[in-house]
Amino acid sequence: MKLNVAQKLIQEHLVSGEMKPGTEIGLKIDQTLTQDATGTMVMLELEAMGVDRAKTEASAQYVDHNLIQSDHRNPDDHLFLRSAAKRFGLYFSRPGNGVSHPVHMQKLCKPGRTLLGSDSHTCANGCMGMLAMGAGGIDVAMAIAGEPFYVKMPQIWGVKLTGKLPDWVSAKDVILEMLRRHDVKGGVGKIIEYYGPGLKDLSAMDRHVIANMGAELGATATVFPSDNEVKRFLKQQGREEDWQEITADRGAEYDLHDEIDLSTLEPLIAKPSSPGNVVPVSEVAGETIYQSYIGSSANPGYRDFAVAAEIVKGKHVANGVSFDINPSSRQILTQLVDEGHIASLLSAGGRLHQAGCNGCIGMGQAPASGRNSLRTTPRNFPGRSGTKEDSVFLCSPETAAASALTGVITDPRTLDMDYPRIKEPKVDFEKDQGMLEEPIDPAEGLSVELEKGPNIKSIPNLAPIEDNFEIPVLLKMGDNISTDEILAGGSRVLPYRSNLQRISTFTFEIVDDTYYERAMKQRDEGGHAVVGGFNYGQGSSREHAALAPRFLGLKAVLVKDFARIHLQNLINFGVLPIQFVDESDYDKIESGDVLVFENVRDKVRNNHEFEISIKGKDEKIRVKHSLTSRHLDIILEGGVINWIKKKQESGV
Amino acid sequence: MKLNVAQKLIQEHLVSGEMKPGTEIGLKIDQTLTQDATGTMVMLELEAMGVDRAKTEASAQYVDHNLIQSDHRNPDDHLFLRSAAKRFGLYFSRPGNGVSHPVHMQKLCKPGRTLLGSDSHTCANGCMGMLAMGAGGIDVAMAIAGEPFYVKMPQIWGVKLTGKLPDWVSAKDVILEMLRRHDVKGGVGKIIEYYGPGLKDLSAMDRHVIANMGAELGATATVFPSDNEVKRFLKQQGREEDWQEITADRGAEYDLHDEIDLSTLEPLIAKPSSPGNVVPVSEVAGETIYQSYIGSSANPGYRDFAVAAEIVKGKHVANGVSFDINPSSRQILTQLVDEGHIASLLSAGGRLHQAGCNGCIGMGQAPASGRNSLRTTPRNFPGRSGTKEDSVFLCSPETAAASALTGVITDPRTLDMDYPRIKEPKVDFEKDQGMLEEPIDPAEGLSVELEKGPNIKSIPNLAPIEDNFEIPVLLKMGDNISTDEILAGGSRVLPYRSNLQRISTFTFEIVDDTYYERAMKQRDEGGHAVVGGFNYGQGSSREHAALAPRFLGLKAVLVKDFARIHLQNLINFGVLPIQFVDESDYDKIESGDVLVFENVRDKVRNNHEFEISIKGKDEKIRVKHSLTSRHLDIILEGGVINWIKKKQESGV
Repeated sequence: MKLNVAQKLIQEHLVSGEMKPGTEIGLKIDQTLTQDATGTMVMLELEAMGVDRAKTEASAQYVDHNLIQSDHRNPDDHLFLRSAAKRFGLYFSRPGNGVSHPVHMQKLCKPGRTLLGSDSHTCANGCMGMLAMGAGGIDVAMAIAGEPFYVKMPQIWGVKLTGKLPDWVSAKDVILEMLRRHDVKGGVGKIIEYYGPGLKDLSAMDRHVIANMGAELGATATVFPSDNEVKRFLKQQGREEDWQEITADRGAEYDLHDEIDLSTLEPLIAKPSSPGNVVPVSEVAGETIYQSYIGSSANPGYRDFAVAAEIVKGKHVANGVSFDINPSSRQILTQLVDEGHIASLLSAGGRLHQAGCNGCIGMGQAPASGRNSLRTTPRNFPGRSGTKEDSVFLCSPETAAASALTGVITDPRTLDMDYPRIKEPKVDFEKDQGMLEEPIDPAEGLSVELEKGPNIKSIPNLAPIEDNFEIPVLLKMGDNISTDEILAGGSRVLPYRSNLQRISTFTFEIVDDTYYERAMKQRDEGGHAVVGGFNYGQGSSREHAALAPRFLGLKAVLVKDFARIHLQNLINFGVLPIQFVDESDYDKIESGDVLVFENVRDKVRNNHEFEISIKGKDEKIRVKHSLTSRHLDIILEGGVINWIKKKQESGV
Repeated sequence: MKLNVAQKLIQEHLVSGEMKPGTEIGLKIDQTLTQDATGTMVMLELEAMGVDRAKTEASAQYVDHNLIQSDHRNPDDHLFLRSAAKRFGLYFSRPGNGVSHPVHMQKLCKPGRTLLGSDSHTCANGCMGMLAMGAGGIDVAMAIAGEPFYVKMPQIWGVKLTGKLPDWVSAKDVILEMLRRHDVKGGVGKIIEYYGPGLKDLSAMDRHVIANMGAELGATATVFPSDNEVKRFLKQQGREEDWQEITADRGAEYDLHDEIDLSTLEPLIAKPSSPGNVVPVSEVAGETIYQSYIGSSANPGYRDFAVAAEIVKGKHVANGVSFDINPSSRQILTQLVDEGHIASLLSAGGRLHQAGCNGCIGMGQAPASGRNSLRTTPRNFPGRSGTKEDSVFLCSPETAAASALTGVITDPRTLDMDYPRIKEPKVDFEKDQGMLEEPIDPAEGLSVELEKGPNIKSIPNLAPIEDNFEIPVLLKMGDNISTDEILAGGSRVLPYRSNLQRISTFTFEIVDDTYYERAMKQRDEGGHAVVGGFNYGQGSSREHAALAPRFLGLKAVLVKDFARIHLQNLINFGVLPIQFVDESDYDKIESGDVLVFENVRDKVRNNHEFEISIKGKDEKIRVKHSLTSRHLDIILEGGVINWIKKKQESGV
């Protein structure tokens, strides 16, 4: 059989199921990545599971999210994660080394391997001929423990690239074009595979830009072939021996098709407040901006900063514009310093921040209320910037830099200058060492004590759902509710990620700030449900968005459909995820209605469809689920921690 | 009469009183600086006072404190301050331009002038032959409005410097030696004037280091002569025409004397948790560190970063050490980039932060719980780092860099290398423009609207004290209570600086976290008092440390003695500041005792000593104050806002 790249990667790692789209497959995981926002919980889970040492080829713990040290909590976590990395045999990337995705690409990625990460942009490393997927933290904990990763076999969506990007148009505009065409759920249940002659002018880092924001399309993964450009990149990193060629077989087929002629693209921009809200820059040109923000894992490359530096060189950004420079890896930051680009950015009025996620996840650089912020980051969900009433646009570094100069949204093609040509410098390895600490010797690891600061707390026991219960609907929400809306990121919230009781107070705050109080009131009275529309739980993979409402008594989520990672997180923490059979039944339920579940443990086990009723109304709602028997085992046990605990107790 | 430099500066600006130590003098203020933490309040006060345009020669509003934008509040404040700068005719230094003190020195300072700033380290510009003093925000608002600044004529303390600093010993060690000798109240009521042959090897920026931490000695100001080195510095800044020579007359005298032979100094370090807790580095060498922190207004110079860069060049900091680089001005940051020093710091494992106050005021870079942090910052009061259980040491960049390499506190003289010699590069003005916006045309300014974000609230009306009242003592504290302990800085607290109701919830939190609740309970029942020891209110000048407890009902503060700026702030907001006549009476009062004040308005007006009693105890406490009739007018009116309001209403 002729195979495409995605199929080759899957076949090589298939431990259960078959490559039939929509059916569950189990995949061996070679590499994992965790970051600090999700990693403390993963490490606590590893400890609870009794894991002695990572069973993967390479697992890395990055510190990139919570770099703002306003009190003891973030630095205490950094020390905890460092001790856990030593304990469990992981790489440890120190604070200041950069964002996980570009650093993993520079240091650890390997064509042909699978990578599972507790970060939704883990897919970025698909640029290197890897099968790289985001997942909940607990899935990653299980992968580190040697368990397979289960996912529905996606459809493989071949996107043929032809032509060559015009001047002033870059990789970000390619992925924005995909979002313009297909919106934020266009990739759900799919692996996007890019191929074709258009690839030859896209560098590995350009491909990273495109693969990264596959997350915003809702795709399971994005893959690129491992070709000579991938080889060049690895060689530049001193890792040529890690290269192997992986390309689609001649005559390989795809389940779905699309094609982009790169030469026809123009500068694009996603308007507030969805990455799918894409229009040509020219359509919004002239609007006043407060901020221009360069960086993040969605534009992490040397080129992305250098092109902005060349645009502003010898000039000065408009008065009143906050021009934020957010380096994404230390390797690239030192290159930019050496080549004079940082000097250009600073002289133009740039505010240079430490290497890390920073403003991309609302950890600093929040814009002023209601003011326009142009960002090269991947997401502009409401409130993600840290500012509740924000107005964030997503665009290329070219557009952001041009707009910084003029003070208004500007199509970079209207600048009176030649398009800067950027050449990647060599990596100076003398200058790029020491911030990624290697795993220590296993025997030594066993004796490492975990350093738990005062803000690191165990996960409380969570009881499984009963057979019969009646629970009120505390929230009825619309489509595309993101995990940022379920549980915000940002510097107010993330520092409590290892303190469930405290972090849960922020749950659904953006949607309805009375939720927490109502849920707490209801918690000991049997819990509650929430109702939503399509694509529920899109966005960031943070498992707290499932765990926090679960802790507050959330028993069932009833929606039109789910975003993949959040669905998995709900299962993992024992929340019942169900969908409307008839979507119009959504209109029959109001906030405050009490849903009646009868014999639900039997029903979900034996039927993929069943009925629930609304108390006091003459209404039955037909609901469905697509849970496997493995999922049901987990949910009916009250979540994966109980499940593994039981498995261990019974010695299986 | 032969005059020293301090006397010359005072005489030139004297508008009332005479130069007799201990008596009140009024001084004309030529320049002011405000920063963003205190500036929003100053701007609201200017608005309330009906000021149309600054009456000073030059007033500058800096944005350097609240640079972490975790939500809308800080960026909204930045926009508010920018609009206020336009409205009132001030310079505006944009976020990212650096800390007020070095930027003011580079751009606006002028030998022979007075500078009043709402930041306790305003004294740093005394290095340039200025009389530069920190004060409460409202004092600065009044100075901007053209009112004189009133202060008790200090004693002039001549410190003769001889000899030359040995290798590995630098300006920071000079001021640490002063703190070792005289502790944190050694400078109270004094202006320190440095003179002598030792000056000739101290650059203007070295003198800045020494003048800056005059604040930690409690000094009213620190002055250096305006000599050829000052001229060289101004020339380097393209401002040679602003120079005038100001040196002490031959035969001038000082009220107090000290002498330091620079050649005898060794590397010094202030142990936790007071800047006065100074010992030789060798005495604590070998202790493991978590953090090494280079930067802040206490070591802002090119040299301070360059010497650290040369020490770590080509090496790598010890595993587990957070090596934080905190540039203090953009001018110097670009110079450090151009000269390769930033590359050296990054390559060694540095975390490079944006130019500003940052960790020095607890806005980021907080250390892990109980772990040792070495800092070149000016203060190590408990909790100021942002971490409640902190352990902060203050030292020179040489000591911090050496310790970063070894991972333990290290005397830099023990490093196996030659002492790096640093040469200051030229300023490239092409690269240093645009971040300090000039005042706009007065006519244009009048029509500027203040941009008030949702977190900027007016100061509520505060009623004056009654004639007779009984108030409980809610806190009894010891010596050296700092304003950080009264109202912490840091990223949790400072964002609410323009929202009095909210910020007051943090009052005395570090001392006793039940205070807020008890004070609120007591507020409508007549208010309360607090009792303290010596040097009450040392440290940061933040007026919220007076305003917030006042808002919570604080009517009287009874202590052994006061730190100068905080005393002024208490007066300005209408709190009665009184001292024990007999210090041993301190022991007679317990927390919870109720103090009885009778006919107090008459008593304070007519007597500098009077009696209060303790309810239910047979105890009288004799108290005193040293308030002038101007102070009493203000206090009995309920604070300076009421006082100015009344003055304006009566058309005086």
